[in-house]
Amino acid sequence: MLKDLILRNRSYRRFYQSERISKTQLMEWVDLARCSASARNSQSLKYILSNDIGLNAEIFELLSWAGYLSNWKGPGEGEQPSAYIIMLHDTLITGNYLCDDGIAAQSILLGAVEAGFGGCIVYTVNRNRLKEIFKLSDQYEIIQVLALGKPKEIVVLDEVKNDDIKYWRDENQVHHVPKRSLEEIIVRVN
Amino acid sequence: MLKDLILRNRSYRRFYQSERISKTQLMEWVDLARCSASARNSQSLKYILSNDIGLNAEIFELLSWAGYLSNWKGPGEGEQPSAYIIMLHDTLITGNYLCDDGIAAQSILLGAVEAGFGGCIVYTVNRNRLKEIFKLSDQYEIIQVLALGKPKEIVVLDEVKNDDIKYWRDENQVHHVPKRSLEEIIVRVN
Repeated sequence: MLKDLILRNRSYRRFYQSERISKTQLMEWVDLARCSASARNSQSLKYILSNDIGLNAEIFELLSWAGYLSNWKGPGEGEQPSAYIIMLHDTLITGNYLCDDGIAAQSILLGAVEAGFGGCIVYTVNRNRLKEIFKLSDQYEIIQVLALGKPKEIVVLDEVKNDDIKYWRDENQVHHVPKRSLEEIIVRVN
Repeated sequence: MLKDLILRNRSYRRFYQSERISKTQLMEWVDLARCSASARNSQSLKYILSNDIGLNAEIFELLSWAGYLSNWKGPGEGEQPSAYIIMLHDTLITGNYLCDDGIAAQSILLGAVEAGFGGCIVYTVNRNRLKEIFKLSDQYEIIQVLALGKPKEIVVLDEVKNDDIKYWRDENQVHHVPKRSLEEIIVRVN
């Protein structure tokens, strides 16, 4: 049931770091993105995969986590992602990928959740340094980094109150995400 | 199984127009988007739903279909969508919704496929006229239109040959979509 999968697909930021993800598994998730829709069918999105412990540590240093949790610097050793999928745009293919990035990210993350893993889309990335690590030419733009692992946190959806949409953590480290109501986001029904 | 759902979730452009979609059903699909990830949890995406025959006809006139099928002007009477979800960006909430649009579109379309329907993301839209129809203020930008219905065409995935990614229709009106291989889109695995 898709609804159940979507509800379980939360943005996870703490993981059982020792729970590895195989390269085959990562490729299966990218294959879900590959089989998803693409604007004008251009398919300009490309991917770098890492489940390598050393390389993961290098990638991790270039990411910023959870902007609203100002006192939290990101997952500590033992709770960091065990794999990454770096999403690239191949600029030689097309200038504009429209919403392909979100489609691909959703397909990959739903696949991860179905397999008992989960992840988080990270946009605050030191792109220049990441390009250096992988010796990426200017042909490629780094769109986002998907951080993946076995989730080690509970994430719950709440109602938005007083228009405050900032996520927060309670004293038990449960991560709360306020969601706008269906009534608020549907402007009109005909 | 998600893979099966993703494979069935093709971009459909011809429908059994008489097969209606209820407002409740449309709201359930929007609810899937509502429960999906949002950049900084801003949730600036909003929606207009239509399953009204008269309004559908007005919306239909403002859409362009299948750029690569130059001899096809879009679905004829009897094969047009039976519902639309118009995705808006509420600019009063945030300036930048990152990849929320693709995430939401994928959630909605996967929901439609699971329920035995399907759809197509349409970006070539007469946005000014559409805003007039719904008397939308400048608070809202129209991002895309999701055209929905009971699919009346067969869509198959092929391999890309000679770097030609244009979709095409064969003599039996089967719609062919060439997809790049996993080897082509994975730049590096570590």
